[in-house]
Amino acid sequence: MTNNYGPTLVISGGAGTIERDNFPAEEQQKYLDALKESLRVGYKILIEGGSSIDAVEASVISLEDCPLFNAGKGSVFTIGGKNELESSIMLGIPSHTAGACTLLHTIKNPIVLAKTLLLDPENPHVFLGGIEAEKYAKSKGLEMVDPSYFFTEQRWKQHMDGLEKGKSSENIGYDAPQLNFNDASQPEFDPSPMGTVGAVAVDVNGIIAAATSTGGFNNKKDGRIGDTPLIACGTWADNDTCGVSGTGNGEYFIRFSVARDVSARMQYLGENLHEAATTVIENLRKVGGNGGVVALDKYGNVAMPFNTSGMYRGYIRTSDGIPHAYIF
Amino acid sequence: MTNNYGPTLVISGGAGTIERDNFPAEEQQKYLDALKESLRVGYKILIEGGSSIDAVEASVISLEDCPLFNAGKGSVFTIGGKNELESSIMLGIPSHTAGACTLLHTIKNPIVLAKTLLLDPENPHVFLGGIEAEKYAKSKGLEMVDPSYFFTEQRWKQHMDGLEKGKSSENIGYDAPQLNFNDASQPEFDPSPMGTVGAVAVDVNGIIAAATSTGGFNNKKDGRIGDTPLIACGTWADNDTCGVSGTGNGEYFIRFSVARDVSARMQYLGENLHEAATTVIENLRKVGGNGGVVALDKYGNVAMPFNTSGMYRGYIRTSDGIPHAYIF
Repeated sequence: MTNNYGPTLVISGGAGTIERDNFPAEEQQKYLDALKESLRVGYKILIEGGSSIDAVEASVISLEDCPLFNAGKGSVFTIGGKNELESSIMLGIPSHTAGACTLLHTIKNPIVLAKTLLLDPENPHVFLGGIEAEKYAKSKGLEMVDPSYFFTEQRWKQHMDGLEKGKSSENIGYDAPQLNFNDASQPEFDPSPMGTVGAVAVDVNGIIAAATSTGGFNNKKDGRIGDTPLIACGTWADNDTCGVSGTGNGEYFIRFSVARDVSARMQYLGENLHEAATTVIENLRKVGGNGGVVALDKYGNVAMPFNTSGMYRGYIRTSDGIPHAYIF
Repeated sequence: MTNNYGPTLVISGGAGTIERDNFPAEEQQKYLDALKESLRVGYKILIEGGSSIDAVEASVISLEDCPLFNAGKGSVFTIGGKNELESSIMLGIPSHTAGACTLLHTIKNPIVLAKTLLLDPENPHVFLGGIEAEKYAKSKGLEMVDPSYFFTEQRWKQHMDGLEKGKSSENIGYDAPQLNFNDASQPEFDPSPMGTVGAVAVDVNGIIAAATSTGGFNNKKDGRIGDTPLIACGTWADNDTCGVSGTGNGEYFIRFSVARDVSARMQYLGENLHEAATTVIENLRKVGGNGGVVALDKYGNVAMPFNTSGMYRGYIRTSDGIPHAYIF
């Protein structure tokens, strides 16, 4: 008999090269606090009997609004000096309803647009991109911002540093700067130069929802679409198997349809969540892909495997109601 | 022992509501001739020892340049009266290399851009969209056209008819007009109001490539991204399992990651190509999704299942060198 943990929420704040030795405890605590806040916001909805889609939306908004993470407010810059955001959301119900959006510059919370696309009965589409997606968001009353809202000093410095090094988009996101606070020649502390945020929840009705949002990676080409808005690559949900949100080297997540693969192994091989998620991330490592996933099944089992040195992550369950957050 | 047919090419010109009784033989022949021409063009490359990626590119270019099919020159219009094109391509080699592009208005052959993205060693991205994708294409010397190149009387009439009926994007592409040449109140003959083109090939080295290109569907929202450019949804290739190109109701192909699912059933359930492809398309029907796939494995086994009344399709093998084309 499978243990049923009840409503559960698991989140990610991004995977990457995060060096423990060069990451001061007080800085780590800021990230852990932000993760716990995101968990509490989503958990409040679940514990009150709310839906998993509302819970993952709320958790992701909390992370999008926090400048520490690479999504929403804290998004990185493209090589052209813009913030170009994208997101997706999916429900594990039999119809596999989903919403996704990309190439956004003026939507404060991209995850809200993804959810609106999913729920709008007059919208026949899963995926909208660019200026038309923004027009749609505006017509639905979503909060629009000037592109300058997404400017942060820290991300701009990363952008300029990347340009100076001529790394630009040749750096596909995982040649992250080594963190060293004592060496002025090193780039400033930057524990999350790429990353993605995500949340997966199962509610009291056993319905799974998964959500992912990102600014992409530092100095990506303008116009680049990553795995985050791609159903089956960055996001997947199926009540019969699991919900998954991915973070890492997006191009690998696309080429190996990582999120869908976790689900496929459970569906067709009969693996449990832990086996499926860890095998997929280990296979990803073998082909050179860096990153991780946060995932859960309808019983509230949680998996958070990653093949990088760290991944901001956490979970909360109704069994104890305590937000658990980790970096390494 | 598995029979090995050697280099093989299978193509699709789109699935949909195609009524045999209302489809004059001479009209049918035009489609069959165009399919056979596409097969011959790709086959010539395979028989001369060329690569599968060159073969599928050439076959898809042939279909993109033919105004009969909904891709390239024959693309449908968005609800805003634009032609908005997209495509993807993937190789079945261990690195699963892929290229994809969307929201294009000035690239004559979107499949060439997808292939260029895949092969460009300086491009770290799988997927580019919008004006930046077009700038990249131009910088690579691809053939650019004025958006008016994609205007055809037939597609414009479908666009206007759709607007008049107020169907617009509420028609998600599969409420195709019934074909009736004797009833003036019926829309004009239109045997392919939506559709997609695609090609999958295996070359003499056993390498599989899959390619898909489309104009979307009539009166889709501007900015809508379908399954065609989405790796795992509209296109997939893996030498160990199969190559797949999908055509049909794109939103369903996204939500059920159709192309990847065919491969996953072979990989994890041990099904053969025929079993996997037919089961996925039957499962798609059960959830309300219309369409089909063309697929092959490295031995040159071919599957072309569809759950609509027709699908333009065909294949050619070195065993007989004869192009086989079908509609119903």
